[in-house]
Amino acid sequence: MSGNTFGHSFRFATWGESHGVAIGATVDGVPPGIPLAEADLQAWLDKRRPGGSKYVTQRQEPDTVRILSGVFEGKTTGTPIALIIDNVDSRSKDYSDIKDLFRPGHADYTYWKKYGLRDYRGGGRASARETAMRVAAGGIARKILARDFGEKFRVRGAMTKIGPLRINPEKWDWDAVETNPFWCPDTTAVGMWSKFLDMVRKEGSSAGAVVEIHASGVPAGLGAPVYAKLDADLAGAIMGINAVKAVEIGDGFNITAIPGEDAQDEMRMKDVAGKNEREVEFLSNHAGGILGGISTGQDIVVRYAVKPTSSVLTPRRTVNVHGEDATVITKGRHDPCVGIRSVPVGEAMVACVLADHWLRHKAQCG
Amino acid sequence: MSGNTFGHSFRFATWGESHGVAIGATVDGVPPGIPLAEADLQAWLDKRRPGGSKYVTQRQEPDTVRILSGVFEGKTTGTPIALIIDNVDSRSKDYSDIKDLFRPGHADYTYWKKYGLRDYRGGGRASARETAMRVAAGGIARKILARDFGEKFRVRGAMTKIGPLRINPEKWDWDAVETNPFWCPDTTAVGMWSKFLDMVRKEGSSAGAVVEIHASGVPAGLGAPVYAKLDADLAGAIMGINAVKAVEIGDGFNITAIPGEDAQDEMRMKDVAGKNEREVEFLSNHAGGILGGISTGQDIVVRYAVKPTSSVLTPRRTVNVHGEDATVITKGRHDPCVGIRSVPVGEAMVACVLADHWLRHKAQCG
Amino acid sequence: MSGNTFGHSFRFATWGESHGVAIGATVDGVPPGIPLAEADLQAWLDKRRPGGSKYVTQRQEPDTVRILSGVFEGKTTGTPIALIIDNVDSRSKDYSDIKDLFRPGHADYTYWKKYGLRDYRGGGRASARETAMRVAAGGIARKILARDFGEKFRVRGAMTKIGPLRINPEKWDWDAVETNPFWCPDTTAVGMWSKFLDMVRKEGSSAGAVVEIHASGVPAGLGAPVYAKLDADLAGAIMGINAVKAVEIGDGFNITAIPGEDAQDEMRMKDVAGKNEREVEFLSNHAGGILGGISTGQDIVVRYAVKPTSSVLTPRRTVNVHGEDATVITKGRHDPCVGIRSVPVGEAMVACVLADHWLRHKAQCG
Amino acid sequence: MSGNTFGHSFRFATWGESHGVAIGATVDGVPPGIPLAEADLQAWLDKRRPGGSKYVTQRQEPDTVRILSGVFEGKTTGTPIALIIDNVDSRSKDYSDIKDLFRPGHADYTYWKKYGLRDYRGGGRASARETAMRVAAGGIARKILARDFGEKFRVRGAMTKIGPLRINPEKWDWDAVETNPFWCPDTTAVGMWSKFLDMVRKEGSSAGAVVEIHASGVPAGLGAPVYAKLDADLAGAIMGINAVKAVEIGDGFNITAIPGEDAQDEMRMKDVAGKNEREVEFLSNHAGGILGGISTGQDIVVRYAVKPTSSVLTPRRTVNVHGEDATVITKGRHDPCVGIRSVPVGEAMVACVLADHWLRHKAQCG
Repeated sequence: MSGNTFGHSFRFATWGESHGVAIGATVDGVPPGIPLAEADLQAWLDKRRPGGSKYVTQRQEPDTVRILSGVFEGKTTGTPIALIIDNVDSRSKDYSDIKDLFRPGHADYTYWKKYGLRDYRGGGRASARETAMRVAAGGIARKILARDFGEKFRVRGAMTKIGPLRINPEKWDWDAVETNPFWCPDTTAVGMWSKFLDMVRKEGSSAGAVVEIHASGVPAGLGAPVYAKLDADLAGAIMGINAVKAVEIGDGFNITAIPGEDAQDEMRMKDVAGKNEREVEFLSNHAGGILGGISTGQDIVVRYAVKPTSSVLTPRRTVNVHGEDATVITKGRHDPCVGIRSVPVGEAMVACVLADHWLRHKAQCG
Repeated sequence: MSGNTFGHSFRFATWGESHGVAIGATVDGVPPGIPLAEADLQAWLDKRRPGGSKYVTQRQEPDTVRILSGVFEGKTTGTPIALIIDNVDSRSKDYSDIKDLFRPGHADYTYWKKYGLRDYRGGGRASARETAMRVAAGGIARKILARDFGEKFRVRGAMTKIGPLRINPEKWDWDAVETNPFWCPDTTAVGMWSKFLDMVRKEGSSAGAVVEIHASGVPAGLGAPVYAKLDADLAGAIMGINAVKAVEIGDGFNITAIPGEDAQDEMRMKDVAGKNEREVEFLSNHAGGILGGISTGQDIVVRYAVKPTSSVLTPRRTVNVHGEDATVITKGRHDPCVGIRSVPVGEAMVACVLADHWLRHKAQCG
Repeated sequence: MSGNTFGHSFRFATWGESHGVAIGATVDGVPPGIPLAEADLQAWLDKRRPGGSKYVTQRQEPDTVRILSGVFEGKTTGTPIALIIDNVDSRSKDYSDIKDLFRPGHADYTYWKKYGLRDYRGGGRASARETAMRVAAGGIARKILARDFGEKFRVRGAMTKIGPLRINPEKWDWDAVETNPFWCPDTTAVGMWSKFLDMVRKEGSSAGAVVEIHASGVPAGLGAPVYAKLDADLAGAIMGINAVKAVEIGDGFNITAIPGEDAQDEMRMKDVAGKNEREVEFLSNHAGGILGGISTGQDIVVRYAVKPTSSVLTPRRTVNVHGEDATVITKGRHDPCVGIRSVPVGEAMVACVLADHWLRHKAQCG
Repeated sequence: MSGNTFGHSFRFATWGESHGVAIGATVDGVPPGIPLAEADLQAWLDKRRPGGSKYVTQRQEPDTVRILSGVFEGKTTGTPIALIIDNVDSRSKDYSDIKDLFRPGHADYTYWKKYGLRDYRGGGRASARETAMRVAAGGIARKILARDFGEKFRVRGAMTKIGPLRINPEKWDWDAVETNPFWCPDTTAVGMWSKFLDMVRKEGSSAGAVVEIHASGVPAGLGAPVYAKLDADLAGAIMGINAVKAVEIGDGFNITAIPGEDAQDEMRMKDVAGKNEREVEFLSNHAGGILGGISTGQDIVVRYAVKPTSSVLTPRRTVNVHGEDATVITKGRHDPCVGIRSVPVGEAMVACVLADHWLRHKAQCG
């Protein structure tokens, strides 16, 4: 019921505003005995951190996470793990220019309508800053899944489109993803993306993006029909990331144009390499690794669209809290393409959904 | 935690298999004093019912819903409302041909991997038959919302694409939707769709679809950041409908190609007709009526993709429970385009999400 | 959030009114593959059934339970198990005498204040008739626990006090419990109880009771601190049974008068019979098998007080829905000591709490 | 599902161990616009604070609470309120003497059995130190209820028994409660209690207690049958407090000995002072303000038993993690009667249950 809690068996709740003293999360339900240190989480946070390249916000936040509870002698104890990140660069700037204005595309108007008041400093609770705690929680989820699913388990994301510019999916190279500031898996697209984003940035405009997350090494059987389907929970978790407007599983919208007989993933038995066993092999993955809301054992493929950052330097028409017409320009240190920093967040949310479903699966079928 | 429960303050749980004796739902949290009769729900069920046209399954199910509790002297009492629909046409046919086979595209394999056994009769719990109870629950959700939001409140859906054939959105006419078996809002598309689906049906193939649901008359303020955002919950609810593979809010994927300054919905004050008041008007609706996870007061626009029905007459490669290669043809009375009958289901799920969020909003902010 | 749902991983929701067409429950989260038939549940229902002796209500209800879903070829499938019991003896009697009156001690007034209307036929939803579904759900919980905990697992209850008359705890004999209509473990008390209750019944009065439930063969480790402690969940589950006004774990109130050094349960290692192993033995069980909200492996001991049945033949002062003073006599077929029929309900609730905690434990620590 | 989360619409989750760096809570679902400052919470925390008299632990903890989020310009914003209290006096002492021992009466053994490891420093998560966050959350609950229920609303507790020594209930004086270190409402009992506890303390023993909490000014209608009854949720919340072994509502166990006709609370209409209105008056309060799981509008009366502090100076038999017999003496700074400091905790839990039910009631019936 709590709007700020994610998950059931693997559960975390976050708190904090963009320009408050700190942000935090409490992660509950973590199995005991898992080795966990702050460095395990910091690695993922560094991926999301602002200031990493000229294509993301220049806010200077070290995003150093501290673990305040739930870990003893280097291992999880089964009790809640409290995480905190201090807000270092929450400049005590003057907000009087936007205090009473509703920035279009932002949550200013809706928070004000819902709550009757709002913390206008940098977006308050609606700021994407909150997603740092998702990344940290995702780091814990990964530790659980890596322990139980083994070495083949992996969740990784890539950006496949910036503004109107798509990658060539045939050139997909996971190794390339870490070598450029866009998490782009197609090295031939990087140059054009750089030029495009430079232009966008200089014009004070912003660009949307498409991101794809793959989870590999996930066993068949995760997901609980019919109102806790794995794809439904993934869709909810991803759509809940700031600025996301669309989610696909597997072929997504493209599957609608395929004849039924081609849209299925046929199956065959195959020999397991090096063993005297056979296992099921799917001959394609239109389904994105999920059938009937339950994982098939194939790669789980989730794709989502991120809208262009709503803060732009072009004057926009709006209204204020007094019911008057107004104009707003959103200055500040913002991301020209907020999709870039959403990649580790998308990965984290996929990991968290999987961890939750894994523990839930163990409850009923373990 | 329960996989078969939807919602929090407005909550329903469903039960039943495709070929069991009946299916049912229990709807809890309904405000007391709302006039409710079986006919209120039957109207929506009739829209989803099989056998309605040659484009949907010929299974003969009257889908007559009965209310077993929670209504007294014609009004809801605030206690749980039990709904039941008998399965009339659950032919005691011979399932020996598919009993041990995993039909590709169906949930056969995943249920078997998750649970170690499965009810193979007509898809069991994974059958779209379960969605009848969603439609019934949605009927109750509509009654709540109509009472509280007034006459302008409406949730309605339309099909905008079958297979590769899209409508022309400029010809959108809501009045046309009820006049054709496809819930098509563009009368000029109906003829081509009929021919296309006839062809698909004769070939024993199937087609995908895109459906769009609009909710009008919803006040600003619904949705609870950050893990119970209205768009997140809509995405989860829609992705959980059988065969859905993608969900968009507002512009969805298309918003990624628009510059930031054009992707926002600007605001102006306007005079309220016939009153000495002014109100906020959005000049566009790229956001689909939701910002920061909270409704803006504009139309809420949700779009989703339905994959082609997985039952086709073309032989498909598969394996069986004994770990052997096999071939399967899915005979039976199936929908050539399951997207058609998903329209009332999509409407119902949107209504249920809104009812849940409305009650939750009242708890905190009412 | 739903008021009519119990539990998390093992979950059931009930519906139905005393004099509606039927009552029912949906049990979700049940592990797959457990043999289950209606007879497994009927045995427990027969224990609670009205009309069993002259000391309980003479309403004639066979309480025949039917399973409508979730069981296939004799085994649970992991999907929700719908249970239904038709109300057979819901006489279409004239309720005009109590329609507008609030019977003291009953929930008439509070339902009316909460909901603004009420189903006045036989207590509606507030009737103890609802507890039949708890007993049925408890039957499923027992099947899960018996499978996983083994032969030593057992939940059984006994009545230790009727009105002012206590048993002698030193004469406790579990075998005696099934041999008298009071579930009394002390055969020397039965005669006096019979005479006392005969008198109470003839005078149109009623008597309270104390009931004690023991769960044996429960492993250490169940319970999830700090807001899902096993004792807290047991207390909530038991206090939620109709007419219960007090709950104790272990020594309960009596422990307050014992010095701290005597109130603890000391431990020693002992040899396991027939094995070359040692195990922990507690030297007493003041704690009732729970420490820090987690089971110790000892017997779990829960005790509760049931108030006298509120329906009595003595005229009582009350008011009516029109705000006028009035007098009420509650005729009808009621239990002179509702505590008797609460025994199988108490057992069932303990079993359900244990099943839920067992599955939750598996999720995190399994 | 999360063991460390309390409530639904009004919800808080706590974290932290006795001797970790800090303890904390996140309170979610709080209505926006409520004036809230740290001082509002500190007042209640000071009541629970260690070191307040010689009858409670001498651990020196200022228990200064800080609000890290969810309050802006002095008002709640509707977003989660993060609370933190630093552990100041968590001496880095040597725990080697109890590291491997299970202290009888403590949760050492059960945590170890559940999780396979434990934070042995001062009880870790099982320490009553966690209850400080309940008190803080209760302070927020009180603010909500005071705003909505008005001046007559009040939750207050008193101790009615220490060890074997009861108060005389006829001498109950709420004004006396704040004037002695025992929250004793009967001034004639204070002297004897002081002497008794001095003796207990000097002997290194400990004493149990009975505490009674009254909530006044609560409107009729709170509580959601049948698995979220107000009394059930109160029982669960109170039984979940450290060392509590029994809970009663209203007459509790005593009601079992009363004839049915006397156990009810009769009703009459009475004139409302100073208004031309009449209202319902109950002529007694055996029910403790709750019927059918719903508040009646009378005072809600909850009573509970606290076992003697488990830490005593008498050597006790136990076993260690290596499966060997051992003896333990629990030195340290402990409460001779942990019941004393439980009074503000009991009050807080009652306030939290009421706040949760109030918001839930508004969702369905508001």
